[in-house]
Amino acid sequence: MTGKVYGLGLGPGDPELVTVKVVRLLNTVPVVAYPESQKGGSFAREIAKSYIPSTAIEVPLDTPMAIDAAVAQAKYDEHAEIIAAHLDAGRDVALLCEGDPFLFGSFMYIYDRLADRYEVEVVPGVSSITACAAAAGLPLCGREDILTVLPGTLPEEVLERELTQTSSAVIMKVGRHLPKIRRVIDKLGCTGGATYVERALNPGQRVVPLARLTEEVAPYFSVILVFRDTD
Amino acid sequence: MTGKVYGLGLGPGDPELVTVKVVRLLNTVPVVAYPESQKGGSFAREIAKSYIPSTAIEVPLDTPMAIDAAVAQAKYDEHAEIIAAHLDAGRDVALLCEGDPFLFGSFMYIYDRLADRYEVEVVPGVSSITACAAAAGLPLCGREDILTVLPGTLPEEVLERELTQTSSAVIMKVGRHLPKIRRVIDKLGCTGGATYVERALNPGQRVVPLARLTEEVAPYFSVILVFRDTD
Repeated sequence: MTGKVYGLGLGPGDPELVTVKVVRLLNTVPVVAYPESQKGGSFAREIAKSYIPSTAIEVPLDTPMAIDAAVAQAKYDEHAEIIAAHLDAGRDVALLCEGDPFLFGSFMYIYDRLADRYEVEVVPGVSSITACAAAAGLPLCGREDILTVLPGTLPEEVLERELTQTSSAVIMKVGRHLPKIRRVIDKLGCTGGATYVERALNPGQRVVPLARLTEEVAPYFSVILVFRDTD
Repeated sequence: MTGKVYGLGLGPGDPELVTVKVVRLLNTVPVVAYPESQKGGSFAREIAKSYIPSTAIEVPLDTPMAIDAAVAQAKYDEHAEIIAAHLDAGRDVALLCEGDPFLFGSFMYIYDRLADRYEVEVVPGVSSITACAAAAGLPLCGREDILTVLPGTLPEEVLERELTQTSSAVIMKVGRHLPKIRRVIDKLGCTGGATYVERALNPGQRVVPLARLTEEVAPYFSVILVFRDTD
């Protein structure tokens, strides 16, 4: 009897934005694994901590931040084997994921390595996309709107092409790409419809019109919402 | 002392995919409003019903299905005034929303009418986008992927243009637009990367490769996930 893996989407950070299903599973699944930075912090564990019983076997997975692809792949291999050892011993494993497991998270790398060999259930979570919209009080899309989700890491010409054609865009992973992103938005004349959101629905939340943002660098987990008047 | 409006995202349908925050608010907010179809059913209330105390003042908002724009706008005016009457009497109102309030929901029409006059808090929910990905076991996007969310109601040439450029697409509101959507996906040669999802994470869930789907019409709340190999 091998164990089962649960990929648990924890939402954007507020422990109250965790689903009832996640609370139930954390109360019953014996092993709780989560990514941990090299400094020892885990945002995922921070979100879930009040729901993890003291009897849980906790498995921090050390995750390097700046990574070359080969190093990262070897690390995910290692994480998958750590989890597999628990599954082979018959223990279910809950793997904690910030936001939603299948939306720009590292969970998919573990999923790729385990889904063929073990039962995996993905429990979707509130994504940072809708969390940012809620924080800013800005509806994302309705009727025949197109919503485009873009990593801010994309080349300038790709961002420009995508923003030209969509009615609503969410630009993720802004970080050090802020000047490039701002240049594209300015060029397209849609700065007036752009809002910068930092730490959505978390302590220290900031919602600022892009036109009034003075910084040149943003935290990695910041987002820019862009609305174009396409009527 | 006027009341406050809470737009509560209830997720894709499973009552366990409601957030802890929604459960707490439903337990304390005195008025619970929700859209109700002309036949008298309310999917939103169905999701939330185990969390609504018997002491709550329930306010069904009759919502016509097939609607011309003017009739719909008049109806939303009426709904906003029903809610405003409770707010003016000092009662907080929870407005139930399937999925996420700011993603293709009718909540935004009420929001537009009330946000200037009353305090409104939007509580994001698990969206059908990530629910479908979880149901299908298909990661949506990672690294430098672009995710495009498209209403299936869009004209054929717009769908084609959008699908040509994205790495991952979620096509919502498939319904009677299925033949058109299928034609575009076939033309672009990406039928092999397309998955049809009906009633994601709900009773009666179906996940079928588009190539094997035989129907010509789908329920309104079905979705097609399209993944293109853009490497």
